[in-house]
Amino acid sequence: MLLIGERINGMFRDIREAIMKRDPEPIKKHAILQTQGGARYLDINTGPAVPPEEQPEVMAWLVQVAQEVSPLPCCLDSTNPEAIEAGLKVHRGKAIINSTTADPWKMEIYFPMAVKYGAALIGLTMNEKGVPKDANDRLALAMELVAQADAYGLPMEDLFIDPLVLPVNVAQDHGPEVLETIRQVKLLASPPPRTVIGLSNISQGCPNRPLINRTFLAMAMACGLDAAIADVEDEELVNVAATANLILNREVYCDSYLKTFRRL
Amino acid sequence: MLLIGERINGMFRDIREAIMKRDPEPIKKHAILQTQGGARYLDINTGPAVPPEEQPEVMAWLVQVAQEVSPLPCCLDSTNPEAIEAGLKVHRGKAIINSTTADPWKMEIYFPMAVKYGAALIGLTMNEKGVPKDANDRLALAMELVAQADAYGLPMEDLFIDPLVLPVNVAQDHGPEVLETIRQVKLLASPPPRTVIGLSNISQGCPNRPLINRTFLAMAMACGLDAAIADVEDEELVNVAATANLILNREVYCDSYLKTFRRL
Repeated sequence: MLLIGERINGMFRDIREAIMKRDPEPIKKHAILQTQGGARYLDINTGPAVPPEEQPEVMAWLVQVAQEVSPLPCCLDSTNPEAIEAGLKVHRGKAIINSTTADPWKMEIYFPMAVKYGAALIGLTMNEKGVPKDANDRLALAMELVAQADAYGLPMEDLFIDPLVLPVNVAQDHGPEVLETIRQVKLLASPPPRTVIGLSNISQGCPNRPLINRTFLAMAMACGLDAAIADVEDEELVNVAATANLILNREVYCDSYLKTFRRL
Repeated sequence: MLLIGERINGMFRDIREAIMKRDPEPIKKHAILQTQGGARYLDINTGPAVPPEEQPEVMAWLVQVAQEVSPLPCCLDSTNPEAIEAGLKVHRGKAIINSTTADPWKMEIYFPMAVKYGAALIGLTMNEKGVPKDANDRLALAMELVAQADAYGLPMEDLFIDPLVLPVNVAQDHGPEVLETIRQVKLLASPPPRTVIGLSNISQGCPNRPLINRTFLAMAMACGLDAAIADVEDEELVNVAATANLILNREVYCDSYLKTFRRL
């Protein structure tokens, strides 16, 4: 199970302020906390407050600051292809591009970029028409992403399909569809693409957010989920990931499995 | 999601002592706690310390004491058919018989008994050869149980298939097989039988038992689990059941769903 730490994101006030002041300390703090917490990737997102023309420089700065204190690779999270590429240019190790939709004009940008930089790529099962209601339509878009990976020569395990988790309080009928999509994505190709979710979306606007997040994580892992962008500073959430990993027999049992899961 | 409270069981010392002294108070206490905690059935097990010839009388006594203070029906848990029948005779409401194996001589006792008393029946996917290693062999035994339900005229939704959860620290490879069995049982008949697990078995002898139990519960529910014999006095475990139920869209979202899940 690959946990991608969500915390270095300009949506959070401390990161937004750090970006405005170009203060590296909060970035470093969360890079270290997440690395110790069990993350294997650090998601890096400038947030919406940074003007588009500054995003490439800010993305590159964030990547460099984070990698100064953490050995982890980054998941470059932006809707701005120039910001993504600026991050890739300074990135050390194998990056993940987060993300392309299944729209042709976006896939034409991001698949070649992933191949050029040897990066993995997250493909969202949505297009300009929005997020599909059910698993079948999500899988049809996943198949378009799989076909592009094949066409551009991106190794299938470097494609992460994201079935798009929506908040349970406003889009409750999407939950079972997302779980079914995670399960069936594995049937689209051999070897199959991997799957990833933006976990915290499930609980947006709800009370009991950590409870909802960790319950959904265990459920998605039972359906074969490979990776999650998540709050790895939530110790209990990481414990659930480690435990589900164990139950799925992906790691050999030992009494101290909660520790070994976090060991780099 | 049907939670069956596991606590009135002579394996626990307070219950064993209560049985020896015929002291109804500890039985009543756990009947009430589990009813308030979100149980929909109370498992009743005399435990191994009661001699076989006394088990029928003790079972009947436990059922009556529990139902004196709780409106819940009981899940009569014994390997002794006479104890089960003694419980059925005094039971109020629709009982569950826990359990038959897939051995012919046992099925010949318990299926007619379930039909006679209008009870549901838990069928274990094991026989005199033991617990199968993989999902396919478990499903073959589940199919024998399904065939008997059909032959004896037990409504299919009154048959609960139990795929037999083993401790993760000694039988780790069984975890994924149990999850797969839960998923595929639903394909055996239409309408399908229901599924149940003895949840606490997963963590027998492990540190972090509550964490392992609640993680596995969410995972099994993602695979379609209908019921679990579990520690419903563990508030966090019941919260996970309520949350998974919500994510599966089995109950309409409301901010106070943790409360409504527990409401009788």
